[in-house]
Amino acid sequence: MKLRLDIVLVHAPVVNRNGEIIGSAVTNLDIHDIARACRSFGVDTYWLVTPFAEQQELSRKIIGHWCEGYGAQANPDRGQALSLVRIADSLGEVIDKVRDKWPEGLKVVATCARERDRDKTTSYAVMRRELEEQEAALLLFGTAWGLAPEVFDHVDAILPPIAGRGKYNHLSVRSAVSIILDRLAGRRDCC
Amino acid sequence: MKLRLDIVLVHAPVVNRNGEIIGSAVTNLDIHDIARACRSFGVDTYWLVTPFAEQQELSRKIIGHWCEGYGAQANPDRGQALSLVRIADSLGEVIDKVRDKWPEGLKVVATCARERDRDKTTSYAVMRRELEEQEAALLLFGTAWGLAPEVFDHVDAILPPIAGRGKYNHLSVRSAVSIILDRLAGRRDCC
Repeated sequence: MKLRLDIVLVHAPVVNRNGEIIGSAVTNLDIHDIARACRSFGVDTYWLVTPFAEQQELSRKIIGHWCEGYGAQANPDRGQALSLVRIADSLGEVIDKVRDKWPEGLKVVATCARERDRDKTTSYAVMRRELEEQEAALLLFGTAWGLAPEVFDHVDAILPPIAGRGKYNHLSVRSAVSIILDRLAGRRDCC
Repeated sequence: MKLRLDIVLVHAPVVNRNGEIIGSAVTNLDIHDIARACRSFGVDTYWLVTPFAEQQELSRKIIGHWCEGYGAQANPDRGQALSLVRIADSLGEVIDKVRDKWPEGLKVVATCARERDRDKTTSYAVMRRELEEQEAALLLFGTAWGLAPEVFDHVDAILPPIAGRGKYNHLSVRSAVSIILDRLAGRRDCC
């Protein structure tokens, strides 16, 4: 069963290792792995944000291959996942479109690999309950070294970083999305 | 803090979509993403099993680049993760070596995307507790369409499949490893 949950993978504005604002390149496996996780955990739409026309074109080609091209016959499961992907020029465009889809109210929630503004920090348990009650949310993930600082000023809430068993904190965005979706929407009765 | 937990990514014997026993190819991002998750969640060693000499050579080249080559200077965090990887010819070799490392007793635990032998099924909560009590475990993941059936005859326990919100059940192995390590070893006090 689908949730009223969209996620967005932001390629710009993000920061590089030096904290400079950049636009990152779309990665084939970010499209595949994250779409498969979204389909598994009941996400409604998986948005890819990139302002670069060539990157949008490449993304459409990849998605088309699996949704309509040879890949659709060879591996129809993959098309089911990639059919959730939509491409947008900017995060603002995504937020506007998702607000139009769920006009009753939308919570925009950022993720980050380190702790930020404590006043805005929510918890996985709270957000899980809100989603179960069919409240609408848009979950933001950054590529490269993470979402640009300005993004955090415009969100309603921030999820705490995923904490492992030490100080090492360099999960791939594919791993982070998978873990966060499992925490928010994975079945718990069976395990 | 490290757990007494190793994981192994098996490239042979695994099954293809038709259920035939095959050997699959090593994937660059399986090495990276899974090593990063292992390093984050306190895994001791991440084993790659492939019987193919060229695949072993390729894997060593990738690991060497990040642990000793240019990548070690450019991104030392990545080397910290990839330094956990060891390559082996067979699952039997891995099990022997891990038993030698932890001779007090080792539980060999398989993962699978669908339910199997109920008598052997353990739970995430039980295994999480055992790891916290410093019991030793080796966790098996299959590439392609999963571990060959014969593997399940030789394990001590099987973890239940990751259940999302419907019947779609096609996570990447990178996502599955990340989610399972978070369930077994992710900090829960902070979220």
